[in-house]
Amino acid sequence: MPASEIDVLGIGNAIVDVIARTDDAFLTKQGLVKGTMALIDSGRAESLYGQMGPGLEMSGGSVANTIAGVASLGGSGAYIGKVGEDQLGRVFAHDLRSIGVRFATPTSAQGPATARCLILVTEDAQRTMNTFLGACVELGPEDIDEALIDGADIAHKAGRKVSLSLSDPFCVERHRADFRALVHHHIDILFANEIEICSLYETKDFSAAMAAVRGECDIAVLTRSAHGSVIVTPRESIAVPAAPVAKVIDTTGAGDLYASGFLYGLTHGKALADCGKLGSLCAAEIIGHFGARPETSLKELAAKAGLV
Amino acid sequence: MPASEIDVLGIGNAIVDVIARTDDAFLTKQGLVKGTMALIDSGRAESLYGQMGPGLEMSGGSVANTIAGVASLGGSGAYIGKVGEDQLGRVFAHDLRSIGVRFATPTSAQGPATARCLILVTEDAQRTMNTFLGACVELGPEDIDEALIDGADIAHKAGRKVSLSLSDPFCVERHRADFRALVHHHIDILFANEIEICSLYETKDFSAAMAAVRGECDIAVLTRSAHGSVIVTPRESIAVPAAPVAKVIDTTGAGDLYASGFLYGLTHGKALADCGKLGSLCAAEIIGHFGARPETSLKELAAKAGLV
Repeated sequence: MPASEIDVLGIGNAIVDVIARTDDAFLTKQGLVKGTMALIDSGRAESLYGQMGPGLEMSGGSVANTIAGVASLGGSGAYIGKVGEDQLGRVFAHDLRSIGVRFATPTSAQGPATARCLILVTEDAQRTMNTFLGACVELGPEDIDEALIDGADIAHKAGRKVSLSLSDPFCVERHRADFRALVHHHIDILFANEIEICSLYETKDFSAAMAAVRGECDIAVLTRSAHGSVIVTPRESIAVPAAPVAKVIDTTGAGDLYASGFLYGLTHGKALADCGKLGSLCAAEIIGHFGARPETSLKELAAKAGLV
Repeated sequence: MPASEIDVLGIGNAIVDVIARTDDAFLTKQGLVKGTMALIDSGRAESLYGQMGPGLEMSGGSVANTIAGVASLGGSGAYIGKVGEDQLGRVFAHDLRSIGVRFATPTSAQGPATARCLILVTEDAQRTMNTFLGACVELGPEDIDEALIDGADIAHKAGRKVSLSLSDPFCVERHRADFRALVHHHIDILFANEIEICSLYETKDFSAAMAAVRGECDIAVLTRSAHGSVIVTPRESIAVPAAPVAKVIDTTGAGDLYASGFLYGLTHGKALADCGKLGSLCAAEIIGHFGARPETSLKELAAKAGLV
């Protein structure tokens, strides 16, 4: 597809997820904090993998999940991220390209292996993530294709909108000042969950966090799991209910897929409330099964719900 | 575990499954016969993979699935099979070892890559399999650990029982005479589905196939999907109903997991009818989700059903 036809371009860590069921005792024994993401080195990755149960491997990576969701909704997406020259790297590339996402970042031939995220899912459907970044750290300025960015509705510069997801409370904790400056100066659309936004503005009160982020960027989308989401703009707050789910199996990718629906809506001229509903719908699909990539056509789901 | 404590030792093709949803049109376009398994070479594997949708990767291989099921039931299993020295090979080995299965076959360091089975699942939950055997073909007599076999309840010689699954109607078609001789002379417990047993004895009538196999081996277990299964011994036929399933998602591994339950029962002194019920229970678990390895503890399921 020509770059000018891209709805959303994502830049992120290209990661293959390794998903396994576990119990609380295992998390405790391993010193893991349920529901969060930890960065681990290759030694720890080997050791943890050796101790966890059988896994299923699926392409992941927060931003790549979002772009895959945009594609599943019928939108056009492009992705920039670094994989290694190995089997999991080929799996990652295949999974994006096979749904029509433009992905042409050169692989890291000599460097470390493709990144893996060891995801432990407990009975309560919470996921605890351990990410070995591997080849991702080799992504450099030379990998950023400016023509691609020029062409995308949501991307970096040249009048394009820039969106950021805060990713993880620990990540916010470590880089709070940088994140605040980034949101204030460069971000048009911010995605954050309740814990992340509270951490960013150092408050325990969600309303205070809402007040703090208002006006910092054009649109702040704050997700609250089963309590739905709130879209905060300089002029208004729009509450969006969560979409119903028969049974929550694995919450991995809920935020990523919410962003898919929201960004698809935004790049297709939908009202903000409908962007939020599309986000809720996509998040509901993803938490009903293992893995953070859609199992069913989100386009059909959205059509059934009368949202597209 | 000491070899003498092994309930079931499996020898099979060590395969990683790549599971993707598809539709009937794709199968037709690719010239695939729904519900069957085809062997493909590396070129065809690349080409088909390039055209199919995003996948999820999980350890598979018919016999390995059976052994994984035995382990999930709380039995002890060992496995002999050949993977390559690559990421998917490590995934395969991890998934078996992490559930306590003894797996020590040397990897094929210089040879082809770990085997993959491209599994296309249609809306009707049928699976169509395309297997690139890769490193599996390097398995040789030197890989067969005789001490392991001596120790196992169900294995090759030294008074141990030998079990065989017919695998696929095309496989039976190609090797009918060899399979018949094998069943007659060397097999104690035979697993076959309706199509396979009818193909083996060249009949379209299931009752005729039952009559033909009776007495050819100690126990023939004939599975009939939703119609349950029939256990045929020289003296009796025992009909076993299928276990209920809320929604059939993917039939991959149904026969393999039936064998898990049956062999677990047999090696734990259960009556044949209960062995069959255990088989049905395990098959029902596996067809309720993607992939051919149990997602929940079969031991707990069997306990709940009062079968162990």
